[in-house]
Amino acid sequence: MSTSSQRDPFVVVREKLDQAVEVLKEKDLDLWLTFVRETTQVRDPSVDLIVGFDLTWQSALMVSRTGERIAIVGRYDVDNVKNIGGYTSVIGYDESIRQPLLEQIQRLRPRQIGLNFSESDPSADGLTHGMFRVLANILGGTEYAARLVSAAPVVAALRGRKSPTEIEHIRAAIDVTEEILQEVRARVRPGMTERDVADMIHGMVEGRGLGTAWEWNFCPIVCAGPEGVFGHRMPGDTQVREGALLQIDFGAEQDGFVADLQRTMYFCRPGEDGPPEEVQKAWKAAKAAMEAGRAALRPGAKGWEVDAVARQALVEAGYPEYKHAFGHHIGRNAHDGATILGPKWERYGTSIEGVVEVGNVFAIELGVFVPGYGYIGCEEDVLVTADGAEYLSQVQEEIWCVHPS
Amino acid sequence: MSTSSQRDPFVVVREKLDQAVEVLKEKDLDLWLTFVRETTQVRDPSVDLIVGFDLTWQSALMVSRTGERIAIVGRYDVDNVKNIGGYTSVIGYDESIRQPLLEQIQRLRPRQIGLNFSESDPSADGLTHGMFRVLANILGGTEYAARLVSAAPVVAALRGRKSPTEIEHIRAAIDVTEEILQEVRARVRPGMTERDVADMIHGMVEGRGLGTAWEWNFCPIVCAGPEGVFGHRMPGDTQVREGALLQIDFGAEQDGFVADLQRTMYFCRPGEDGPPEEVQKAWKAAKAAMEAGRAALRPGAKGWEVDAVARQALVEAGYPEYKHAFGHHIGRNAHDGATILGPKWERYGTSIEGVVEVGNVFAIELGVFVPGYGYIGCEEDVLVTADGAEYLSQVQEEIWCVHPS
Repeated sequence: MSTSSQRDPFVVVREKLDQAVEVLKEKDLDLWLTFVRETTQVRDPSVDLIVGFDLTWQSALMVSRTGERIAIVGRYDVDNVKNIGGYTSVIGYDESIRQPLLEQIQRLRPRQIGLNFSESDPSADGLTHGMFRVLANILGGTEYAARLVSAAPVVAALRGRKSPTEIEHIRAAIDVTEEILQEVRARVRPGMTERDVADMIHGMVEGRGLGTAWEWNFCPIVCAGPEGVFGHRMPGDTQVREGALLQIDFGAEQDGFVADLQRTMYFCRPGEDGPPEEVQKAWKAAKAAMEAGRAALRPGAKGWEVDAVARQALVEAGYPEYKHAFGHHIGRNAHDGATILGPKWERYGTSIEGVVEVGNVFAIELGVFVPGYGYIGCEEDVLVTADGAEYLSQVQEEIWCVHPS
Repeated sequence: MSTSSQRDPFVVVREKLDQAVEVLKEKDLDLWLTFVRETTQVRDPSVDLIVGFDLTWQSALMVSRTGERIAIVGRYDVDNVKNIGGYTSVIGYDESIRQPLLEQIQRLRPRQIGLNFSESDPSADGLTHGMFRVLANILGGTEYAARLVSAAPVVAALRGRKSPTEIEHIRAAIDVTEEILQEVRARVRPGMTERDVADMIHGMVEGRGLGTAWEWNFCPIVCAGPEGVFGHRMPGDTQVREGALLQIDFGAEQDGFVADLQRTMYFCRPGEDGPPEEVQKAWKAAKAAMEAGRAALRPGAKGWEVDAVARQALVEAGYPEYKHAFGHHIGRNAHDGATILGPKWERYGTSIEGVVEVGNVFAIELGVFVPGYGYIGCEEDVLVTADGAEYLSQVQEEIWCVHPS
């Protein structure tokens, strides 16, 4: 867990609460209700957006299109929520949330109450089924029981449209991730195992007081040579060796925001100038597909349209389709929900129908396996502006070659 | 995030999978299904019990009363789940989980399918409402759509009945927590602020490579003197001073398991031998209520019955009721779900009707505010055996007195 900065930690929370009101107006939703408890056990991702710390007893966080931001929380959490400085009303309770929650809803008289559930967007799906039942029970017998809808469009917009402060945080996470990857480039040597490389990176992360963008034991993903199977696996005993590739998928977490990058290295044999031709050919095809996808990543494009461009470019160059999505949001999480730039596979649900918007930050990625050499992985982070997608990361243009020392 | 031990990290996971089969038989449930995705976003607490790391695509983890343990996961997670060594079958997929999931359920023909939802137990409520809807859609048109029930009794038993390895881990977390608290006792001095005390503890935690039992910025809770309001608040600027109490609520996290203890100190004025009489009187009343509650904490007792004994003892001694529950499970989390030793308040739902069982580990706690001096907090960790509750922590018998140096 990273220590938060000593600056006012709630700047972003207040920005997101302000933004939420605007999104509610745009999406024509009267009330957005985040309903949680014991968030150390199950933490609705929206708690990060509009609170920033854990809540204990049943807690209702409500934002109305009229601009009210009401928090109903257990008595021990009241002062903390007041400290955010973003709620117009903070109401504490001891024995039951029922009465204060009913009172507020009956006062606000919303036509719809948006809840955090979604079949397709994990970031908009923080409401547990048990808490849904608790709420249905509390509202039972009122007209509001029939007014519960999914708040997923609101959550996706709020999470996906990064504020200037959020973008600044993501840039900083990318910068430090690149710094670490360059240090790895300078220090990694044939004979090291994947585990050695991961341990080295963990040391750099700890030395800088950072966290990892995803679960510690699986971040970085390190794939040495053709023996390693590409996946979400833990680094193993396979050694980095001359005449083979090394692919690293890694992101650092700093102040609650993350990067997600892949870098590919080749270890020259004595006398070799660079990677052999078939590796270079695959690299160029991967890079061309990356660039085709990036060019298609513009405001208004649908997620699946962007994926299709990159996928087709790779296939037309004679390589197999990658078995994942071309792109995903990053921010507070390496898989930050909302629109996925992915193919029309059932497991992506409607997330690929989402539309790219200004202020979105995506990781875009694809790869090619080169038999005998290993895996080429390309992944960069981009910010969507009115003009298209601009790189936030320093793009890897060529395979990093390491010559025998 | 703590680095996991280099020992086989899946010993406990395999123990819990074995135990799950026994619990299913006892509770007469044919199939337990944990249905998750992108657990870096929303992590069902049961994933810690039966997997131990994050899963990415939609994943179905099934345990049958006949002893089968089946995992259906995205292709990139297959090898990781196989590495656990506890699943009888690990099935990968690319595009959709629908077909393999339907095939397995139709093969197993369960009379009921238990899902992780609960209105009262947060640890048994890891299924999101969106994923419930995904599942209902997949099972739509089959007879199994009408066989979905809550698995909460299974999850509560499985989580609450600690295995020997789990108890060993909790003991270790308690030991290191006590070591830190003793170091604090030796080093804390009047003039330090609550924030200084918290920073000192954080240094000790980081120096040992540990985590905190709950959110970093709120663990420890430090309350200096009578000015501090007791709650889940962040340590503030109030100073430790002579003639006042200091209460610390803290737990370390080690190898994924936690402790949860409170310790109370008094800073003697020059010439004072110990705390003044009214502080001592309150301490004795608090300790007597703790002991009454502990004595009532026996296998077969209901949660609310245990709370009532402690609560009544304190009230009869002339002090106000504490505004929380007397006890809660600890283990992987400082609030570990299952039975709560709490009063019949609506927010506790049916968790207080749960029955105390052998192998449960509880934190038991209560406190008294002494006007002019501060908050007395007592909290110890206990293991329930056939004979009753035995302390795992070294009980604080007296207020720790710090004399002027």
